Amino acid sequence: MFEFTIIKKASGSLARTGVLKTAHGTVHTPAFMPVATIGAVKTVSSWELVDCSIEMLIANAYHLYLRPGDPYIREMGGLHRFMHWDRPIVTDSGGFQIYSLSPLRKITRDGVCFTSHIDGSTHFLTPEAVVDIQFNLGSDIMMILDECVGHNASEKEAARSVELTGLWARRALRHYKQQKGHFSSPGALFGIIQGGMCLRLRTEAVKELLELDFDGYAIGGLSVGESAKLRNDLTRHVTGLLPREKCVHLMGVGKPQDVLHAVDAGIDLFDCVLPTRNGRNGQAFTNEGPLNLRAAYYRDDVRPIEEGCTCHACCTMSRAYLRHLLKIEEVLGIRMLSLHNICFYARFFQRIRHALSTDTFGAFCEDFFARYKENEAQKGIVSS
Amino acid sequence: MFEFTIIKKASGSLARTGVLKTAHGTVHTPAFMPVATIGAVKTVSSWELVDCSIEMLIANAYHLYLRPGDPYIREMGGLHRFMHWDRPIVTDSGGFQIYSLSPLRKITRDGVCFTSHIDGSTHFLTPEAVVDIQFNLGSDIMMILDECVGHNASEKEAARSVELTGLWARRALRHYKQQKGHFSSPGALFGIIQGGMCLRLRTEAVKELLELDFDGYAIGGLSVGESAKLRNDLTRHVTGLLPREKCVHLMGVGKPQDVLHAVDAGIDLFDCVLPTRNGRNGQAFTNEGPLNLRAAYYRDDVRPIEEGCTCHACCTMSRAYLRHLLKIEEVLGIRMLSLHNICFYARFFQRIRHALSTDTFGAFCEDFFARYKENEAQKGIVSS
Repeated sequence: MFEFTIIKKASGSLARTGVLKTAHGTVHTPAFMPVATIGAVKTVSSWELVDCSIEMLIANAYHLYLRPGDPYIREMGGLHRFMHWDRPIVTDSGGFQIYSLSPLRKITRDGVCFTSHIDGSTHFLTPEAVVDIQFNLGSDIMMILDECVGHNASEKEAARSVELTGLWARRALRHYKQQKGHFSSPGALFGIIQGGMCLRLRTEAVKELLELDFDGYAIGGLSVGESAKLRNDLTRHVTGLLPREKCVHLMGVGKPQDVLHAVDAGIDLFDCVLPTRNGRNGQAFTNEGPLNLRAAYYRDDVRPIEEGCTCHACCTMSRAYLRHLLKIEEVLGIRMLSLHNICFYARFFQRIRHALSTDTFGAFCEDFFARYKENEAQKGIVSS
Repeated sequence: MFEFTIIKKASGSLARTGVLKTAHGTVHTPAFMPVATIGAVKTVSSWELVDCSIEMLIANAYHLYLRPGDPYIREMGGLHRFMHWDRPIVTDSGGFQIYSLSPLRKITRDGVCFTSHIDGSTHFLTPEAVVDIQFNLGSDIMMILDECVGHNASEKEAARSVELTGLWARRALRHYKQQKGHFSSPGALFGIIQGGMCLRLRTEAVKELLELDFDGYAIGGLSVGESAKLRNDLTRHVTGLLPREKCVHLMGVGKPQDVLHAVDAGIDLFDCVLPTRNGRNGQAFTNEGPLNLRAAYYRDDVRPIEEGCTCHACCTMSRAYLRHLLKIEEVLGIRMLSLHNICFYARFFQRIRHALSTDTFGAFCEDFFARYKENEAQKGIVSS
């Protein structure tokens, strides 16, 4: 079961709010997915995510294939049951991870041969195998195996990646259609649009995938070091070419400012490690901008991270205490910041959806940008 | 405010159950205190401790003096407010930590000079200063500065430690009585009984302290490598010499088996790092004995850690999933094991108190020892 319905479109923008129905329940879009790479959102439990109103997670097929293994997860009743998360799950194919984590890899038209970043063992994965892995996991939305290139790749390399990803997309989709009948509630399959930093190649990648019949589309290969301007332009270029009724996922992009640009360009789904990764580094998101809670500036600050936030950290802990926890390297500190940041993102997306449903998205963005200061809030840079 | 009332004594044993009233509320004894050394129980939040029915914590004056500093905590409204824990707090003086953590220390009759284990800075603490630190923290029960010796200490060394601890006890108590009037609800002060592994010196230490008027007594210098038999004998020897109406704290002893022996000897308060430290090592406590959840044996085990446990880990996660979290070194795993273990201890002590109040403690112990297997439950030692 997979149904995407646009509820309301913004005036004068490609932005829209909608509802995604899956076998594991409904997701309101634009939606933010915390990253549960190996079957857990770092430091945060499933019931805390539910408490924050998170509706969908993203996990990683490559990581779960290596540890604990997708046949094992299938034996354990699928990823939802294994990690006690009964809401929808997207799985990334792991194309990006294979290229970034594997010390040795060889790509042929047939598939990708790589050594595990964990134990150095050798593996060979085809586009078909990556679909099977995701069937084993029981994902609600599966991603095709893609080839990623860095933002400094030559046009020739990017062109080859588009061609190969297109070829793999065909094979993945054929295999998916052959196999899906064997599952009572097979997930949807999304195509991934590559093409590096080149508008022409992005157009070509979209054309290739539109010849096929995917349930939705993901835009890959961004947030790899390019400028925000280029990222925004490429995103808008791609969404402009895609059929309006399809659900679109912008992979790995998640700074609040970038999110607003991407929503404006018509993006429906987001995933990003920022709330948890930055939380582990002592950064807390607020509507005024991120706070670096390790800074001496917060030594005597008895206020919560953000007034009005209902997360457990904000309800019970001062910035001063959180700073103390970070400074003594107590896990409770990074746990609380991760939790707060996920709550912040959940609330940020709720407000985006509310703005879209009342057709006030433009005003919402203006208001947000007026308040949100990427750097000014980083008070007292000197940590002591 | 400090009032200890024995509610019921066991027949044929020194065991008793009672109620300890402090300015921050009531504690039912025998009570278990999780260890919040530097103002946090590792990985676990205050509201989770309340959820487990934990009534009192123990923190460490030495650690908090070094980081973030006791004058700072006083400015922040005291330790209770700083760490958002409104139930009673005991603080250990840190004598043990000064001796075990400080690379350089020099003890004189006046006090102890040591270098910080964090930044190598030099500090000098007197028995009076250690009382002042604990006033600043706002502890409900404060401990005198004591001198600890290892279990291999000579009788001469142990004798010197008894003499010095006795001298410091007098000074601490005098200072405490002079100062307590300056505080609206000053904590109680406990004397610490040292004396190494020698019954005669323990007797002498008790005699020294009984000449003074402490609110309660702590037995220190155990769990430093001695046998369980010797520890039990020494504990029983000391409690036999103490006035029955005083509250007695056995410091740092916490294996379930040892707890039962100590309760039988008349101990009222316990603190121990086992639930959190062993949790971080992958060990989960159950009524059948500890489980080593890293072991391959639990790979396919879909049961909770312990049937009937109401902690969040047991309500939502399988042993197999917890093992996976431990193997990928995900913080959520050690967090869940720490939480479960604290819940286990809270429940274990509830059952002890129930047995005492119904005068069935003997039967409870028999039943416990029949079920609890220290080693047999460590199934599948080979981790894979």
